[in-house]
Order: sequence, then structure tokens, then C-alpha cells
Amino acid sequence: MPKKKFAKESATIMTEMVLPNDTNTLNNLMGGKLMHWLDVVAAIAAQKHSNRIVVTASADSISFKEPIALGNVVTLKSQVTRAFNSSMEVFIEVIAEDIPANKKIMTHRAFFTFVAVDQNGKPIEVPEVVPETPEEKEHYEGALRRRQLRLVLSQRMKPEDAVELKSIFNLPGTN
Amino acid sequence: MPKKKFAKESATIMTEMVLPNDTNTLNNLMGGKLMHWLDVVAAIAAQKHSNRIVVTASADSISFKEPIALGNVVTLKSQVTRAFNSSMEVFIEVIAEDIPANKKIMTHRAFFTFVAVDQNGKPIEVPEVVPETPEEKEHYEGALRRRQLRLVLSQRMKPEDAVELKSIFNLPGTN
Amino acid sequence: MPKKKFAKESATIMTEMVLPNDTNTLNNLMGGKLMHWLDVVAAIAAQKHSNRIVVTASADSISFKEPIALGNVVTLKSQVTRAFNSSMEVFIEVIAEDIPANKKIMTHRAFFTFVAVDQNGKPIEVPEVVPETPEEKEHYEGALRRRQLRLVLSQRMKPEDAVELKSIFNLPGTN
Amino acid sequence: MPKKKFAKESATIMTEMVLPNDTNTLNNLMGGKLMHWLDVVAAIAAQKHSNRIVVTASADSISFKEPIALGNVVTLKSQVTRAFNSSMEVFIEVIAEDIPANKKIMTHRAFFTFVAVDQNGKPIEVPEVVPETPEEKEHYEGALRRRQLRLVLSQRMKPEDAVELKSIFNLPGTN
Amino acid sequence: MPKKKFAKESATIMTEMVLPNDTNTLNNLMGGKLMHWLDVVAAIAAQKHSNRIVVTASADSISFKEPIALGNVVTLKSQVTRAFNSSMEVFIEVIAEDIPANKKIMTHRAFFTFVAVDQNGKPIEVPEVVPETPEEKEHYEGALRRRQLRLVLSQRMKPEDAVELKSIFNLPGTN
Amino acid sequence: MPKKKFAKESATIMTEMVLPNDTNTLNNLMGGKLMHWLDVVAAIAAQKHSNRIVVTASADSISFKEPIALGNVVTLKSQVTRAFNSSMEVFIEVIAEDIPANKKIMTHRAFFTFVAVDQNGKPIEVPEVVPETPEEKEHYEGALRRRQLRLVLSQRMKPEDAVELKSIFNLPGTN
Repeated sequence: MPKKKFAKESATIMTEMVLPNDTNTLNNLMGGKLMHWLDVVAAIAAQKHSNRIVVTASADSISFKEPIALGNVVTLKSQVTRAFNSSMEVFIEVIAEDIPANKKIMTHRAFFTFVAVDQNGKPIEVPEVVPETPEEKEHYEGALRRRQLRLVLSQRMKPEDAVELKSIFNLPGTN
Repeated sequence: MPKKKFAKESATIMTEMVLPNDTNTLNNLMGGKLMHWLDVVAAIAAQKHSNRIVVTASADSISFKEPIALGNVVTLKSQVTRAFNSSMEVFIEVIAEDIPANKKIMTHRAFFTFVAVDQNGKPIEVPEVVPETPEEKEHYEGALRRRQLRLVLSQRMKPEDAVELKSIFNLPGTN
Repeated sequence: MPKKKFAKESATIMTEMVLPNDTNTLNNLMGGKLMHWLDVVAAIAAQKHSNRIVVTASADSISFKEPIALGNVVTLKSQVTRAFNSSMEVFIEVIAEDIPANKKIMTHRAFFTFVAVDQNGKPIEVPEVVPETPEEKEHYEGALRRRQLRLVLSQRMKPEDAVELKSIFNLPGTN
Repeated sequence: MPKKKFAKESATIMTEMVLPNDTNTLNNLMGGKLMHWLDVVAAIAAQKHSNRIVVTASADSISFKEPIALGNVVTLKSQVTRAFNSSMEVFIEVIAEDIPANKKIMTHRAFFTFVAVDQNGKPIEVPEVVPETPEEKEHYEGALRRRQLRLVLSQRMKPEDAVELKSIFNLPGTN
Repeated sequence: MPKKKFAKESATIMTEMVLPNDTNTLNNLMGGKLMHWLDVVAAIAAQKHSNRIVVTASADSISFKEPIALGNVVTLKSQVTRAFNSSMEVFIEVIAEDIPANKKIMTHRAFFTFVAVDQNGKPIEVPEVVPETPEEKEHYEGALRRRQLRLVLSQRMKPEDAVELKSIFNLPGTN
Repeated sequence: MPKKKFAKESATIMTEMVLPNDTNTLNNLMGGKLMHWLDVVAAIAAQKHSNRIVVTASADSISFKEPIALGNVVTLKSQVTRAFNSSMEVFIEVIAEDIPANKKIMTHRAFFTFVAVDQNGKPIEVPEVVPETPEEKEHYEGALRRRQLRLVLSQRMKPEDAVELKSIFNLPGTN
């Protein structure tokens, strides 16, 4: 097992076509179906980084702005941003295309975390992530702040201890 | 269309059995499948409150602590907590049971928001929510803070304007 | 294992949305799909009563009067009515809603029976059912007559021995 | 539209393999899944007889004796037995095979009824059925008695008027 | 295990209805879904001939001329044509019907090959095929030529050694 | 509509996990399921090249050598090789990975053809393909020979007219 791996080694691309059973009454993709796809593409990236079985630990909040229509082609790209012992944060970007209409929009950006486990489901350490591009470095840096938000939201960290997180509120005494 | 409806009028219960295709290599329910179910049961509650077509607007962050095993019975209970013009926040509680083993655990608590739309997909106003029980009142009160967090996280509100949200950091000058 | 359990302890509620693949050429729910859902919701009630693995033993005749349309929300409620050694009769009630149209109809009432089995598939005794409400008591009373009809129809009881059943024909010598 | 068609003109054969998602905890086919297949194969036979869209009107009681295992090949054969104005009774026979073990058993015999409808869902007359073989004639004769049982069970006929049905009880005054 | 079996002993019929999720933007059956069905119906015929677990070895080229519409009934008939040690060639014929319109067309003819294997996946010998009808004999004769084409196309036979195959080019020195 | 497009503009990547329902008795991916995925990933590449609705015209023969196991991650890469008026040939490469075991194998190479059609299903011209890399050029060159083989096999071209195709037999008088 290497001690470190490049972020890009976990890069995964998944393509799906929106079928009738995936849509709501307005013939748009249901949010829950998209979340299912996000989980699958992110889990594969986490598997590639850790070469382990992985289980979903959390999904960060996600907002749905652009509807994705029946027949659209949805491309999901995922890549591990940073590892913390046995857990990995994965970034996912979603692009929806109406190919005959030649329209292509970036519809979602999401973060999921996974834990690498052994055959008995016990957490097991994973390699560190080495970011290379500016975007990978930005995701690497932001991972700490998002991790604190997750811990605060799931009540496993006191808000006053979330130093990185507080900075987003631009309050005196935070950086 | 009534101006107000009781929170409980939207109560919805969904029961699912975990089948082989829903599970990962450890024979536990995949996170993405659960999120799909959460979206469906929450959408039905939002439909009941608004008597409208609804579309998913956001899913709050969710953490997965307890694995749910193949063959388990999963019960999902959803109810609208509060409405803001055309949008509704829905609370969902998930219980997993291994019935032959007589084990039953509360595995998840989640919040989704939906927007009521007309046949052309345009947002349309919904009734206000009237909370009755202590739990309903607590969810109603907290909805404002969670809404600010969503707006900050999706960069539609500046953190310094999120008065309700800042209060969770117990900083001087916040309540 | 308790000797007796209340009927209501097995109460189960399942909610489904009618999706495109569930419908026929007229965009109405296919009968076979509904029977599939009936079997699942009834099996869960039988599991809850017996805390055992259960297998379907029979489905009573069912008639389909009201069509259920694409996009409708279908609520299925099941509850064990009575136990006979290792077998349990389950009552299921089906309600279909067109929520945007504010229409709600009771579409089906059905009876399924299940047998509780051990890990090798051998039948195993289950608790008796204690009915409480008038409707539970009526279902409990009728269970014997329906059981005789099942035995006659599957040629495991001679019609002339079906004392309870004959009563529905109001013939001399029957009650 | 012909006035009469032979029973065999509607004969339909469907073959299915039992997949993991079709099975219960004991790795046997779930009753509800089999009922779904019965409905599909019977509907196709009714379509062939009537050359119309058909909707399920009823499923007669069915009992499940032999478990059907994961990996088994299930063959379902259906054929219309008799028509009554716009409705048709369909007989279905189910055979399960464990081919590598060279075992083949007749597991079920079932009756479903369908109504032929026009594009607006209104019932429409169908050809009469002409039975030829001894088995087809037996099914044709029994159809009247089964029809009375359905009407009595769905409370659309008084038991004392069900002349054909009463005969199965071998009571004085019935044949 | 018999040394020889009649071709017809492996005959298998599968019937499917084209559902919304099986169709493309033009509401016609997707080619990939049809290939999935071809594989299943052919595998069952190969299982019946060999009484073994079988795995797909190859699918011959297939062309799609006639579109098959949503709601059509598709009948697939398969039968083993010839065996070569542990491998079997299977012929499949596809008929699509628009029953309410009383239209029925033969849409495809395809050849798949399968290998019979033991529980560890090792190839195992199968009975020879005895063709009876003129069509079965024609398929039996052609099987050798198609086998050479497969070997040439998968680069396991040199084209100049494919004596039977060369004959279709009517070149001097070939028959 | 451009007159020419680069081959790489149609490049598509699809990733799938092998789930229980996709596997046969030996827990390996069923051939028919893989063919379904091949068709989807190839259709998307053809859509990207033509910006049109596309329908499957043919699948070339494919052989299955390496089994792909339950839980494996399957990556399918597709790209248009050459266009002929309204039809396009698509090359697909399949890689299967057992990520926890760190094993990755190229399992299949396949060719499908698609026809671009308008809303009424009528064929419509597509841009020419401009190959750039050595592999793209090799696929472009071979496309003519494979097209002749398809025409011969579907009996729309006489074998003696298939000049390009005959060359693979290295016969005198062919190049």
C-alpha cells in the first residue's frame, strides 16, 4: 500500500441516460435518483484511492437548481480531494446534456465522504492525497473546513472549536 | 386552497425491504439507495401539504452511522415542518428493523426542501404550517436557522447576514 | 416468544408512487404490480407478528374495480387478523390518491396468508392474535370462514365439511 | 372482428429466470413476483383473443405450495378459457425447473379475468371462445361456476342465486 | 447423461412486453435491451440441452431493421443447433406483435454460443445434437461455417484455414 | 451542422458496478447485460457525433473470454470511428476492475453501428469523422472492411463484391 497517491488517480467518470422511471410528473430527473448516482460514482473514486471496500459516511448538503430532462445524458465526474486516516472526501461534478439541442450545463457540485473498511467492516487507514492542479489544491484546502461543518452538524464537534469553519463568517478573532 | 394546514396532515409512512441489488459488498444498504427513498417519502409529504406537483430543491447534509443489513425492513416517516412562500422543509426519520432478531434502531434524521410548482414548472404559493406537538414546534423553530445555513452554503446569503445561524456558534453578539 | 400479541402490533404502512414502468397502455397501474406490493406489505406484517421468516401461503381472490393512474400515490395498510398454528391471515387495505387533484379512493381490500418458518424452511408456531377494535374482531371472526374457503378451493377440505363456509349460502342446516 | 375464436389461438408461453432481487431470505421466489408474472402472461393471452387493450378484472385465489428456488427457470403457459361479453377468463399453468438438477415440477394453476376496453377505457365485446381438447372443454364448463364464485365473493351476486357454485357443496337440491 | 439429444428438446419460448424504460426517445425498443433478452432465452435453451450451468461465449453480429414499438409483445424462440465438445450454438428468432393492430413481424434471427461449465467454471462435454426437420438440418450444416467465421473474427483461426467459410465467397478452389 | 468532426469529440466513458441481479449462477456478469451497456455507451457517442437521435443499426459479433465478477467495476469507453452518410460505426473498449484486489483487465473490444434519424425516424446525414491518433486512423481504415462484412452477413452485398473484406483471406487477386 503506497503512503501517498495523486488525487487524479481516483478520477472516475460515469454517464447515464435519463429514462422514464427516473423522472417526476414534469418529466424531469428525480432528485433522489441523482443522489443515488452521486453515491455510486463517488464510492468508486474512494475505492480507487484506497483499494478497499468503502462505505458512505456522509453526503454534504446539495441544492437542485436546474431541472434535468427525460432523455438527457448526465455525466458525473468524481475524484478524492483529501484523506483523514480511514475517511476520504470525494468531489463530484454533474453535467447534463441535451445532445440533439446541443445544450450542456453544469448542474451540480457535491461532496460525499466514505470510510475504507476491511472484510469485517472495521475502518482501515488509507493513503494521503497529493493534489496537483490549482483546483485540486483548492479542494484539498477546503476539505478541513467542510469536515468541521460536518462534525458540527452531526453534533460531534462544538461550534466554538470549529476554527476553520468560523472563518467563513468573517467574525473578529477568526481568519 | 386553505391558508394554513396542520403539520400532521402531511405525515407519510413508507416501508421498504432491503433487497440484494440495494446492497454493497458487505451486504449493507447503499447510501445512495437510502437517499433515493428519503427523496420519495419527503416529496409525498410535500405534495400532501401543498396539493401541488413538487420538485426537490435541496437535501441537507446527512451522515450514515449505522449500517442497515440485507433483509432489514426500513420504515421512513416524513412530515412538513415549515413553509416559506412556495418552498417547504420536510423532516424524515428512518428506522431499520431486523425483525427476526427483534432489533429496531433509529438510523437517520434528515431534512429536504421542496418547491411547489404549477404545470409549467413555475413556483406557486403553499399554505402555512401549523405545528402542534412539542417536536413539531421545535422543528418549526429550527427551520429558519437551517434555511440560513442552506442559503450560506449555496452562496445565496452572506454569512454575516445569517443571524439565526450564527447563534449556533455561541459568539458574542449572537443569541 | 409471547403466547399472544395484539393485532395492531403488526400494523404496517407502505407508500408507493405509480411510475411509468408500472403502468399499462392506458397509463394505469398493472394488476400484477399491485399484487406484488400487496405481498410485500402483508409479508412485513406477518414478520412483525411472528418475528420469523415468513413465506406466502396463499392470496385470496381479488377484484380490480377502480383504475389507479400514473403519478398516483398508493398507500397500503396491512395487519394480521388471526393465527392458526404456524399460519397467519393478513388483511390489506389499499388507498389511491391523486394528490394535486385532491382525490382519494379506497380501491382494494385483500387477504393473504403466510407461514412462519425456521432457517430450514420448516413451519414453526406463532403467537395467537388478540383483536381489540370492532373491525379487528370482525376480521378475526371471518378468518375461520375464509380459511375453509381456501381449503375447499385448494381441494384440501371436502365442501360438506366446511361448516362455517356453508353458512354464507344461507342453506337449511347452516347458521 | 371474428364472432368466434379457438381457445388455442390465445396460447402464450413466458419463460423467466429467478434472479436475486426476486427472492426472499430463504432464496426462494417471492409470491408477489410470481403474481406479477401471472398477470403479464395472462394479459397477453387476453390481448391475443380480443385484439384489444385489456385490463385485469380479477385474480382468483392462489395457493403457494412448492417453493421455487433462485436460478430456477419458470415457464408460464396461459390460454383464454371462456368469454362473457367483454370479459375473458384466462387459465395459467406454472412449471418450475432446476435444469442442472434435471428436476421439473408443476407448481401452480391459476385463473385471472380481464376486460377488453377501447382507447377511453370503455368495455367492448370480444369473440366467443371455441374449446377443442378435453382440457379446454373442462375449463370452459368450469368457467361459469368460477364466475359465480367471483361474483359472490365480491358481493355482486347473492349466494343463493349461485346455482352452479352451490353444486360443489353436494347439497340436496343442487346438481 | 445421454450421448445425443434432439434439437427440439432445447426449444424455449420467452414473451416480453415492451415497457417505457426499455425504449429510446422515439418510443422504440432499445437494441441493447433486445440483446439482453436474446442472451437469456438462448442461455435457457443451452441449459436445457446440456443440463449444466452455461456461460455466454459469443454473440454473432446482429442487425436491427424493424423498430419494435412501446407496448408491443415480443416473442423469442430459441433452440440449440449443434454442439462442439463443450460449446453449443443456439438459434433465436424474434417476432414482434402489435396485437390491437393485428400486426406481427419477424424482426430478428440471431446466433449465440454458450459453453457448459461445472461448478468451478471449467468447460465440460455436452451431448451431440440430432437435427430432425429440414430447418434444423440446415442450421446444423451451417453451424460449422459460422464457427469458422467466429474463430477468424476473434483471431483464433487463420482465414486461409477456414475452408467452410471461404465457400461463401465463391472463390476458385472453394466449394 | 459542421461538415466534419474529430473522432475524439464523441468520446464517452461509462462506469458500472456489477450488482447481484446482473450475474449468473457463477456470480459473473451475464453476457446480455454487458451487451445492454455496450449499446447505451455506443449510442451516446453516436449522439455526440451527430447531435441527433440515433437508433441501433447493428452489433458486430462479440466474444466473451474473461468472466467479470460480482462487485467488479466495469468501465466502457466509446468513440465514433467513421461515418457513412447517415450511419456511424462506434468502437467500444471494456475494462473490468477488481479494485480491492488491484486487478484490471481489458475484457472486450466491440463495434456497433447507429443511424441518425429525425423526429419521424427518417435517416439524416451526419458529419464526416476526422481521425487523428494512430489508433483512430487504424479504426477509420478498418471500418470499410467491417462494413462489407456486415453487408455480406445480412445478405445485402454479394460476397464477390466485398473487395476490402476478401483481403483478410489473403487470396490471390486480393490485396
